[in-house]
Amino acid sequence: MTDPVALTAELIRCPSVTPSEGGALRLLETRLAAAGFECHRVDRGGVANLFARWGARGHRRTFGFNGHTDVVPAGDTAAWTHDPFGADQREGMLWGRGATDMKSGVAAFVAAAIDLVTDTPPDGALILTITGDEEGDAIDGTAALLDWMATEGEHMDVCLVGEPTSRETLGDMMKIGRRGSMTAYFTAHGVQGHSAYPHRAQNPIPALARLVERLAAYPLDEGTRHFDPSTLAVTTFDTGNPANNVIPGLCRATVNIRFNEAHSSDSLADWLRAEADKVTDETGIRIGMEVKVSGESFVTPPGPLSDLVAGAVEAETGMRPEMSTSGGTSDARFVKDFCPVVEFGLVGKTMHQVDERVEVAQIEALKRIYARILTDYFG
Amino acid sequence: MTDPVALTAELIRCPSVTPSEGGALRLLETRLAAAGFECHRVDRGGVANLFARWGARGHRRTFGFNGHTDVVPAGDTAAWTHDPFGADQREGMLWGRGATDMKSGVAAFVAAAIDLVTDTPPDGALILTITGDEEGDAIDGTAALLDWMATEGEHMDVCLVGEPTSRETLGDMMKIGRRGSMTAYFTAHGVQGHSAYPHRAQNPIPALARLVERLAAYPLDEGTRHFDPSTLAVTTFDTGNPANNVIPGLCRATVNIRFNEAHSSDSLADWLRAEADKVTDETGIRIGMEVKVSGESFVTPPGPLSDLVAGAVEAETGMRPEMSTSGGTSDARFVKDFCPVVEFGLVGKTMHQVDERVEVAQIEALKRIYARILTDYFG
Ligand SMILES: [Zn+2]
Ligand SMILES: [Zn+2]
Repeated sequence: MTDPVALTAELIRCPSVTPSEGGALRLLETRLAAAGFECHRVDRGGVANLFARWGARGHRRTFGFNGHTDVVPAGDTAAWTHDPFGADQREGMLWGRGATDMKSGVAAFVAAAIDLVTDTPPDGALILTITGDEEGDAIDGTAALLDWMATEGEHMDVCLVGEPTSRETLGDMMKIGRRGSMTAYFTAHGVQGHSAYPHRAQNPIPALARLVERLAAYPLDEGTRHFDPSTLAVTTFDTGNPANNVIPGLCRATVNIRFNEAHSSDSLADWLRAEADKVTDETGIRIGMEVKVSGESFVTPPGPLSDLVAGAVEAETGMRPEMSTSGGTSDARFVKDFCPVVEFGLVGKTMHQVDERVEVAQIEALKRIYARILTDYFG
Repeated sequence: MTDPVALTAELIRCPSVTPSEGGALRLLETRLAAAGFECHRVDRGGVANLFARWGARGHRRTFGFNGHTDVVPAGDTAAWTHDPFGADQREGMLWGRGATDMKSGVAAFVAAAIDLVTDTPPDGALILTITGDEEGDAIDGTAALLDWMATEGEHMDVCLVGEPTSRETLGDMMKIGRRGSMTAYFTAHGVQGHSAYPHRAQNPIPALARLVERLAAYPLDEGTRHFDPSTLAVTTFDTGNPANNVIPGLCRATVNIRFNEAHSSDSLADWLRAEADKVTDETGIRIGMEVKVSGESFVTPPGPLSDLVAGAVEAETGMRPEMSTSGGTSDARFVKDFCPVVEFGLVGKTMHQVDERVEVAQIEALKRIYARILTDYFG
């Protein structure tokens, strides 16, 4: 039996702050190879990634796990009560950066996978994709791994991402999709001038204020079958003007949109552009816009995969997980282009915070859930 | 005959950048004392000021001049084509910081005053108040001089401020008042949060955007008999938020108002406060406000003093000056509490700029205008 708690602790002791591999993937590769997995390092642009398969390539029943070993920086180390890379264990808790996001999740599915192929080798295949670039730009991470797989003829029939998805208690929530996320950067161009002579200037602030106020008040939708309503947040508005007797020549604002399947980043960009143009027509202030898309929305509608995962969770915890599409982005947004994907993992409350920690018993329970999912899938 | 051009050049060579006296007031005190003026230095809070009277204290016909010898810094010295404190003279121009604002104006009225009392001593008195703190906070400048005068029983019947008031040509404009100026600093208080969960945050940006957009669109008035319409300019709007996935906890905006006699700073502050409260009622976002008043509006309605000045200008230039109340603040805002005050001086186009300069012939013409005003007043 592979101990997922000891494995989590070993991973926490690897200082794998993005983009550093920190020994985490090397450790996993050693363990998986010893259990009979065929391993490939798929390193791209200074980022390390690990592909591991047990069983035949192209097997008609191939179950996939996806996760990441990279972590965000420890932040204010002095504010931690335990060494963020020490993996201290006390009173049933394991402390360290990555304890919930998501070295424990990786350890749990790696342990479940090794035990399965060692104790009761299934008629099927298992693929583990583990990246060192989820917290960063993610360009050279899971996306690169999936591209490599396509080139090599590797295929998963379904995939489970082990990110922390539970809200209050292990098992209360899984994710069957994610909202899309995009950011629009607006720059309003006026003509600088002295505030005593505003008619000689063209003040860009009221125009941009009008635009962001309208955007913030606009109801994007009322939610869809699987999604909460889309949301729009104005996150910055700045002139950087040091003088209060000068009308600035330009000002900038940033708007972040989390959107559901009622929209695409293209349809939203068109709408934003039209609203900006309307303000330009009304005010004469030219408004430039640049858009950065982090991901489109996607959903794996409830079906065999989500039923499989929800059933295993219920059997182990007594709770039927809510099938949610809330929250930020994850690497599921890349996987969804290749096969049905859902996400299930621990409670993520302390992720990215000082004193990130996890209950030891939760890691063990998570391994049991992943093991039952595999047994049910191959059974 | 006192040469106003030579005197301007001497003053430019005194590096009297606020609050430094730079020898400028010392120079004037020497000249005025030699011509029979009773001089007092009224220095306050590190700022030098000069009071000079010719004739009896309390004479029923006392004409006042007001001006300043302090200048704003030279700025980018390398960008000047002449030494900003060199007073180079070439092709009919005199170069240097203060050439238009307003060492030439001071030199012109000092020269006119000295010549008058020397050549044709009038039945009356002349008071010159010259400050070294007009470009700075102005608290220890003309305001302090006027307080000192009140204490000493010194009184002017009328006062002419020699600031540059002409627009395109010497004589085309004089000032009979000024708009008031005030600045309001708004801070909108929300609750910080992650942009993926805007319902858990309270975004202060759309609320403050709504406020400034409404304020900017509001017609304060349509102008009054002597004033242009009041104006409001939003000069800053800032969150200082470095992250576009975080809704900021607060944001700030600054609004500058130049207002005419239809308003007071109190009535405007009440209106601003009410508009901010309305947005708070609508949005739940608390908006704090602080107000700084630079000066109330004032006007010396057309009458004997403005007629006197306009008549002399017309006699010397052939142009009847427009009686304007446009532009920023000046020390006339202090003088107006003691006696009727108007302003007349050179074209101020290059003031506060690199390569500030003045036509030599304009200084001579300005001295002739000031001299005629005195002759007409005492005649
Ligand atoms: Zn994660
Ligand atoms: Zn001035």
